[in-house]
Amino acid sequence: MKELKEIHQITIRFNEVDSLGIVWHGHYISYFEEGREAFGKTFGISYLDIKKQGFAVPIVKTSTDHMLPLKYGDVAIIETAFKNTQAAKIIFEYVIKNHQNQVVCKGETVQVFTSIETGEMALTNPEFFKKWKQKYNLLDD
Amino acid sequence: MKELKEIHQITIRFNEVDSLGIVWHGHYISYFEEGREAFGKTFGISYLDIKKQGFAVPIVKTSTDHMLPLKYGDVAIIETAFKNTQAAKIIFEYVIKNHQNQVVCKGETVQVFTSIETGEMALTNPEFFKKWKQKYNLLDD
Amino acid sequence: MKELKEIHQITIRFNEVDSLGIVWHGHYISYFEEGREAFGKTFGISYLDIKKQGFAVPIVKTSTDHMLPLKYGDVAIIETAFKNTQAAKIIFEYVIKNHQNQVVCKGETVQVFTSIETGEMALTNPEFFKKWKQKYNLLDD
Amino acid sequence: MKELKEIHQITIRFNEVDSLGIVWHGHYISYFEEGREAFGKTFGISYLDIKKQGFAVPIVKTSTDHMLPLKYGDVAIIETAFKNTQAAKIIFEYVIKNHQNQVVCKGETVQVFTSIETGEMALTNPEFFKKWKQKYNLLDD
Repeated sequence: MKELKEIHQITIRFNEVDSLGIVWHGHYISYFEEGREAFGKTFGISYLDIKKQGFAVPIVKTSTDHMLPLKYGDVAIIETAFKNTQAAKIIFEYVIKNHQNQVVCKGETVQVFTSIETGEMALTNPEFFKKWKQKYNLLDD
Repeated sequence: MKELKEIHQITIRFNEVDSLGIVWHGHYISYFEEGREAFGKTFGISYLDIKKQGFAVPIVKTSTDHMLPLKYGDVAIIETAFKNTQAAKIIFEYVIKNHQNQVVCKGETVQVFTSIETGEMALTNPEFFKKWKQKYNLLDD
Repeated sequence: MKELKEIHQITIRFNEVDSLGIVWHGHYISYFEEGREAFGKTFGISYLDIKKQGFAVPIVKTSTDHMLPLKYGDVAIIETAFKNTQAAKIIFEYVIKNHQNQVVCKGETVQVFTSIETGEMALTNPEFFKKWKQKYNLLDD
Repeated sequence: MKELKEIHQITIRFNEVDSLGIVWHGHYISYFEEGREAFGKTFGISYLDIKKQGFAVPIVKTSTDHMLPLKYGDVAIIETAFKNTQAAKIIFEYVIKNHQNQVVCKGETVQVFTSIETGEMALTNPEFFKKWKQKYNLLDD
């Protein structure tokens, strides 16, 4: 099983830093989303792709670990990796690195599947997601 | 040892909800900060109080657990509780409830002390913080 | 012709103020939107109401005039008034006041109608909007 | 008198677009700030440069004109031009273009000088700003 990973570059905005010139910690949740959506575009599993299948994928868990600050104008790399699980969930792991290749932040998000029509949460993986996993050799057995 | 807890009310803004009328998950990090700062104002340990002592208290860890959505116009309660630890850290636990008293989100943040002058992280609790703990009977002995 | 106006109260969030404790100027665009949507809910012309009629109403112009700052915890009032025009536009005027009833910010937004189906801009007022104007005696002659 | 102008490139973030994939209008105020600060870095008149002189430069007016939308992943150019005036004000004009060189948004901001020490607004240009203007041949005589 190969690991699915996407590399995405961002440049820190002026409005993302606080009075000390350091990125406010809450913005990393946006950077994770940015990385996740870049992953989705590459691997055909973006918000829009999933919506077409009749599902929303709300975030149910997030975590962040902050090691180093990012500053205005910094170029950073977001590595977004798909973490396989048998549960009806989508788990992504993130590593954000600065231009000196130092890890500045790590994190994880967990998403579930809810039907757009009924609003109900799927207890097993939807068919389209099983097919997606199959395509990338992520199904066990 | 009594538990230190602050109750703070917010009303969900229109710009905080996404296309489905549900609060974007990243905003909960702001709500935690809102609760933390309300706690700080009540117990004399706000960002400004700490800055006067020569310290910044950057966030080094966050986590969120999302149970239910909040919508535009919803009134929500943020409960912010101080979680005592012997380490040179400030840990807060958050519970956000909707107006029906249902838990919509839980979370935790961890902060460390860094000297504003040198930028260095404190390995033991600064004097002012020990005094603050003493005042609220949070010191072990 | 009576004037249509909505009064909406907000409390300034901690994350809306900058290092000096003053609201960042860009947030006033959000406050205007908050006032506009409160107006829309009261008078049956919210984003959702308009969407049901097959139209989006993108903002094509904004302006702000800043007189006084708002600070963390301040309670402010947003007055949102409908400014009638014969053109195929929706114009709102905003006055934001602090709790001492001083004007802190004034502004205006202009919106046009675009068909959700075709994406095209309406050159004359859509039927549903004419009826809405009629209901509130805003049609000329 | 030459015109002072700065060209700055941004890439639209996922969290900056709404449900239709179009940048929310309020973000253009941030893009203007991004352009203004890029100008400030190049010409030695950034927030930090001004702060060192004992002044803050709060925004007292903004205006935006929206012609075309920007979408997630779009690369855009912010042209920030200094508009000379004899008044004790800093005026910038902004033009944002998409990668096809079409104008998507125009705007203007007006800033005044306030003393960080006293909080009072300067009625005439501060000395440091006169010298800055002289350096770039922007003084009338």
